[in-house]
Amino acid sequence: MGIIKTPSSYIISAYSVGGTLEKHGLIGDLIDRCDEKDDTFGKDTWEKSESEMQRLAALGAIESAGLDPGSVDVAFSGDLLNQCIASSHGLMSLGIPSCGLFGACSTCAESMLVAAVFSSFVKNTVLASTSSHNCSAERQFRFPVEYAALRTPTSQWTVTGSAAFVVSPSDKGARARIVEGTFGRIVDSGTDDLNNMGAAMAPAAADTLIRYFAGSGKGPSDFDRIVTGDLGMEGSSLFRELVSANGYDVLGAHKDCGLEIYDIERQDVHSGGSGCGCSAVVMAAKYIGMLERGEIKDMLFVGTGALMNAMSVGQGNTIPAVAHLVRLTS
Amino acid sequence: MGIIKTPSSYIISAYSVGGTLEKHGLIGDLIDRCDEKDDTFGKDTWEKSESEMQRLAALGAIESAGLDPGSVDVAFSGDLLNQCIASSHGLMSLGIPSCGLFGACSTCAESMLVAAVFSSFVKNTVLASTSSHNCSAERQFRFPVEYAALRTPTSQWTVTGSAAFVVSPSDKGARARIVEGTFGRIVDSGTDDLNNMGAAMAPAAADTLIRYFAGSGKGPSDFDRIVTGDLGMEGSSLFRELVSANGYDVLGAHKDCGLEIYDIERQDVHSGGSGCGCSAVVMAAKYIGMLERGEIKDMLFVGTGALMNAMSVGQGNTIPAVAHLVRLTS
Repeated sequence: MGIIKTPSSYIISAYSVGGTLEKHGLIGDLIDRCDEKDDTFGKDTWEKSESEMQRLAALGAIESAGLDPGSVDVAFSGDLLNQCIASSHGLMSLGIPSCGLFGACSTCAESMLVAAVFSSFVKNTVLASTSSHNCSAERQFRFPVEYAALRTPTSQWTVTGSAAFVVSPSDKGARARIVEGTFGRIVDSGTDDLNNMGAAMAPAAADTLIRYFAGSGKGPSDFDRIVTGDLGMEGSSLFRELVSANGYDVLGAHKDCGLEIYDIERQDVHSGGSGCGCSAVVMAAKYIGMLERGEIKDMLFVGTGALMNAMSVGQGNTIPAVAHLVRLTS
Repeated sequence: MGIIKTPSSYIISAYSVGGTLEKHGLIGDLIDRCDEKDDTFGKDTWEKSESEMQRLAALGAIESAGLDPGSVDVAFSGDLLNQCIASSHGLMSLGIPSCGLFGACSTCAESMLVAAVFSSFVKNTVLASTSSHNCSAERQFRFPVEYAALRTPTSQWTVTGSAAFVVSPSDKGARARIVEGTFGRIVDSGTDDLNNMGAAMAPAAADTLIRYFAGSGKGPSDFDRIVTGDLGMEGSSLFRELVSANGYDVLGAHKDCGLEIYDIERQDVHSGGSGCGCSAVVMAAKYIGMLERGEIKDMLFVGTGALMNAMSVGQGNTIPAVAHLVRLTS
């Protein structure tokens, strides 16, 4: 069933970067660095701001692991911008051999799984990094935020955030462990609503989780948390229904990164957070710490991504999605 | 120096797809399937045509390996379109667990190296696939071809093509072998000319090749071919100069995929071919066969990619590039 075991893969550092809304959200105090002034990170375009966030996250993770960029063997990184320029332009100055990934909002989980394979088998010290920025994403996929376009109730708020992880083959300084994972299949939900990514991604998340349960012989009760990222309100509800229809009750263990980063009652984010940076920041700021402190011992992280661009929807295509799963232990 | 050994990684099939210009180019007779009518592959948008090419290439490679899609463990794929929709929409119907890559025109080499690691160590049967389409790329990066915009002498012609490879941990039915490789660093040449990708990518190709020579202790004379993809006329000349300035004379062994796919004297392609599909088609249609027949025994393939989008150049950024290297043997 495609479960990839990664016997020696340890997350030795995690570093998260966020914007103003993220700072004032549910886990703001746990985010390592926030731009509380204007989300620009001192740059003159939103795209450069996003690149700068990814540079800060990568450097933060490398330094907090006690390393320098020259001792990282390879970086796996990705983002939502056309041709992934946030990653390439952001990491450029670090001089690390770089392999670009694309998995839309699933990229954090995807990069963790690829990093775990290179760590376990090639014995590489690996950087995994991801980012999104509300202003660069909104103008690329929907409307520039300056238009103040109305948003539908099912729409999610693209997170201004980036996080990076250093994954090492040695358990020295380990904060958490990646023990296995599985790549998702591309699932077409039939949805074509650019403002309802949750509905597009929920079937992919359910498909991957069910495949993982079937292949591993495990079930929801084997895990302290099953964390999706990022289905939001609408998608989370659909996901639970789909998984339940297949005989698995995840209600007790399920959390969604899109609902853990913002206070959706107080902050005007509609169905919750999304974007490559959402699950990356929640994993780096919240869950790695919980695993490190032993507050949870065994969790699944199911990163979800909608595979479309603005033109593909305009051409009448549906929005397929993919979800990649990694299992992390303390 | 970051050389990754891949001890059990065999290319058991390769399948290439092209358009009309490619059919009438230098290796047209070697391309497995061409749309000689109108390059649409029966679809009503260029983006859907590109997805269809990638589906045909993937299915062709899987079938010519005597497999069905269900026996492929994972697909590593990528393309030039925003959010890599050619890959995701093209491979969707095959139901293969899929990991998206982004390396611009270096994606073919990138996917081979990642595939070789998963084949060698995870013992996966892997699909590596890549595509580009002249009409979808030109309108995304420059102008719709219908505008008939003038092209500069240094501009390259985005190849309408796709190729896929099945990489297996077993040597049964092997056509060629991937023995090692190295990921490139992101190199900023300082170039900002959207019509001179060769100049943007040559320094990255030189950087990776020189790192590989230094790390392996090998030199140009150890290889029957050193194939870059795709520097074109301008970039190839710069690449040879840069490598030569570092003490390596590659003139006897060097070929460039951008100069091997079209007859640049007869076909109006200016500096040569480019695009994710260019090196993919040349590798699949020409070099895998030469390795299989023993006409060459040991070669380096250095895939090069320019890391920009149309907006990043408009915002005053330079065009950084990356080059990934794989060593293939018969």
